[in-house]
Amino acid sequence: MGIELKNKAMEVAMKIKKLGQDDPRRIIHSIKVGVALTLVSLFYYWRPLYDGFGASGIWAVITVVVIFEFTVGATLSKGLNRSLGTMLAGALGVGVDYLATLSGQKGEPFVLGIFVFLIAASATFSRFFPGIKARYDYGVLIFILTFSMVSVSGYRVDEFLTMAHQRLATILAGGAICIIISIVVCPVWAGETLHNSIISNIDKLANFLEGFGGEYFHCSEDEQHDISTDKDKSFLQAYKVVLNSKSVEDSMANFARWEPRHGNFGFRHPWKHYLKIGSFARQCAYQIEALNAHLRPQLQEPSQFRRMMEVPCKTITSESAKALKALATSIKTMTDPSPSSQLHLTTAKTAINDLKNSLKSATTHMSEDISNLLAIIPDATVASILIDIVKSVEDLSEAVIELSLKAKFKSVSPEKPQLLHKGTIKPFVEDEDEQSESHVVITVRGIENNNEDLPVNKK
Amino acid sequence: MGIELKNKAMEVAMKIKKLGQDDPRRIIHSIKVGVALTLVSLFYYWRPLYDGFGASGIWAVITVVVIFEFTVGATLSKGLNRSLGTMLAGALGVGVDYLATLSGQKGEPFVLGIFVFLIAASATFSRFFPGIKARYDYGVLIFILTFSMVSVSGYRVDEFLTMAHQRLATILAGGAICIIISIVVCPVWAGETLHNSIISNIDKLANFLEGFGGEYFHCSEDEQHDISTDKDKSFLQAYKVVLNSKSVEDSMANFARWEPRHGNFGFRHPWKHYLKIGSFARQCAYQIEALNAHLRPQLQEPSQFRRMMEVPCKTITSESAKALKALATSIKTMTDPSPSSQLHLTTAKTAINDLKNSLKSATTHMSEDISNLLAIIPDATVASILIDIVKSVEDLSEAVIELSLKAKFKSVSPEKPQLLHKGTIKPFVEDEDEQSESHVVITVRGIENNNEDLPVNKK
Repeated sequence: MGIELKNKAMEVAMKIKKLGQDDPRRIIHSIKVGVALTLVSLFYYWRPLYDGFGASGIWAVITVVVIFEFTVGATLSKGLNRSLGTMLAGALGVGVDYLATLSGQKGEPFVLGIFVFLIAASATFSRFFPGIKARYDYGVLIFILTFSMVSVSGYRVDEFLTMAHQRLATILAGGAICIIISIVVCPVWAGETLHNSIISNIDKLANFLEGFGGEYFHCSEDEQHDISTDKDKSFLQAYKVVLNSKSVEDSMANFARWEPRHGNFGFRHPWKHYLKIGSFARQCAYQIEALNAHLRPQLQEPSQFRRMMEVPCKTITSESAKALKALATSIKTMTDPSPSSQLHLTTAKTAINDLKNSLKSATTHMSEDISNLLAIIPDATVASILIDIVKSVEDLSEAVIELSLKAKFKSVSPEKPQLLHKGTIKPFVEDEDEQSESHVVITVRGIENNNEDLPVNKK
Repeated sequence: MGIELKNKAMEVAMKIKKLGQDDPRRIIHSIKVGVALTLVSLFYYWRPLYDGFGASGIWAVITVVVIFEFTVGATLSKGLNRSLGTMLAGALGVGVDYLATLSGQKGEPFVLGIFVFLIAASATFSRFFPGIKARYDYGVLIFILTFSMVSVSGYRVDEFLTMAHQRLATILAGGAICIIISIVVCPVWAGETLHNSIISNIDKLANFLEGFGGEYFHCSEDEQHDISTDKDKSFLQAYKVVLNSKSVEDSMANFARWEPRHGNFGFRHPWKHYLKIGSFARQCAYQIEALNAHLRPQLQEPSQFRRMMEVPCKTITSESAKALKALATSIKTMTDPSPSSQLHLTTAKTAINDLKNSLKSATTHMSEDISNLLAIIPDATVASILIDIVKSVEDLSEAVIELSLKAKFKSVSPEKPQLLHKGTIKPFVEDEDEQSESHVVITVRGIENNNEDLPVNKK
């Protein structure tokens, strides 16, 4: 019994540790909330403040608990929604209260009741509008809440204005503490999170394509000893998270729009455009899902047809992977994506033509194999999906180029080499073991250092 | 200016009308919230109640605004979370307060501060656990809120217990009003919504497959006059909503687990299993997405190869569509899916064999066409994806059969015809124009009537 309990406790402890290790920002966030709450307790503990605000100090506590969210954008969105909703509803509530008093002692409850019903019902209905739901849902909730509270309690409490003033002041104070702590202490920006998740999604697609060629054609050389060694193939599954990325990306983009300038992202950074890139990435992931179905362990000798496809197909996958990695790097470093990604895309398209040419002349070379069309259909399907994937990567590339124009990415312009004499040159290679490609992006030290300061580069 | 304003107003009015027409439950929900709020206002207006509860009546108003959600499950989940969180935190808060007073006038704020920090931080961290996030997120929020309020204000207010008692009573009253109204007046069940959305998603997949055969092979017969007539092809796009259905289904399943028995759904209805069916439906949708890429208007004469594929491929799509529709109907009527869906799946699989056989013997029949492998690749890909789709439909069918066992669906057993002499028989055909299939499910009147009473049948 005691051992069981101990095991259980160990298990929970391991889970907590893993959760913290997966994203240390979670631990920091929890501490931030604790600090903010302890700070607003001062409204109660500290006599000078208590004398100023009175029992309304409790509203600062409520505000902190309710609006402090994980990302800055969400906190700002909730804070602004809460203040706006409170103020609008307060004003309206006072107005309605005044109207109700005009109708006399008897009529007052009825007038108030009718107003509460009408306003609550129509505000609730407005929450079904997609535009309002996405950005102002919480504000409308607070509006209904405050309006009912003000109009209902106004019926009893006459020192309404003093109370409203105190309450609003403490709410603003609580909100300000949240927003300041959330921005100043290790901020978690929704925009940056969206930015990084788009990058990592594109990388995951690239990793799949990079590994696919080897996996699909590998039986041809060394099937015996490699099938037993169960090496890590998680990169072939990682892309699956891209399939269901829509809802998270949507909400991040919504929060990001509330965020002030941070890092390399201006206030009007085209966050909405990330959603377009995200949807092209999903498109590509759907095709990869179709491709993945063809990655079954093949035990018999590969057909002549598959061997014929091997070289162009491997080029298509590896060049598409390189193009995707170049796009991811371009978003990461916020530099013009055109040069390197276009290069790889062109190579991939040339490989498609090679593939098509060998298919065109297939029968003359391999008359014995072709007699059975059925046998070549799986391989033909893979070839066809690969051709579609290059198209998807092209779409994605165009979307990234559009983003680079909208967000004014730095260009890796050909004029820059004139500066060479003034700085030191060093090849810019990230994760050397991952990138065995032949291209090297040359950047001048000054620009590179600048990049390293960006929070977007920290993972 | 005046006209512009009028146009704008008209536009908004149209939007409101459309929103209400799309789902009239939205209007009813808004009215329900209005009624609930007006009811709790009684706590304030009605003197006997006010004398009992005092200013705490405001907590009933807050509770109604905050926990009244669109579905019964969400309302119950929030209500239970709120009560549990409040009670736990209240008890803990009193305990901590007691501990703090032991440490003397000077030490009290520090002890309280430390406890607030520790408990708020660790509770905030617990919200990152996926299991807690999914089901108890709101409860933990309320726990932090109440705990801070109790421990902080306990420092000033001594009549704590009376207040806690009043507050809890009004919260429970407010919660009870919400839950009763939400269950009694036109309830929107999360479970039923999930059930219906799974059915309609499977139907959307079926509609695509049903239409695909005609679309893909149609140029062969009547390309001239049909390409110009832009007939409604929305059924070819409807499946796209299935691609991103995961997040909605997940949250509905979570809410459904809080719901009591309703309609045909028992308290322990296997809602989690719907998620499995949903994920197979998405799998199928991904393949359809790949298929959809091949639906380009083809202007040249179809190849001999495509004409050879036509009959078996059309059988595969139409039989898969029928199998899917049978599965959807089976979930809808909660009857055993095996007989009819298995029949169509078997026919589809036979068609796959036909297709394979004609491919095997392809070269002997069409020597002139085969010389260009490139030309047949798109068609071969379609054939291959169709074969994969049948596999997906089979997976889906197995998942539905599993559901039918877990949820104890009624069986359309072969013994039933013994009852024939006691009742009237009539063929059970829904939407006759849609279902031109050859199978007929025979049900005995008694059972059929029973089905018609189910809310699940109302769309």
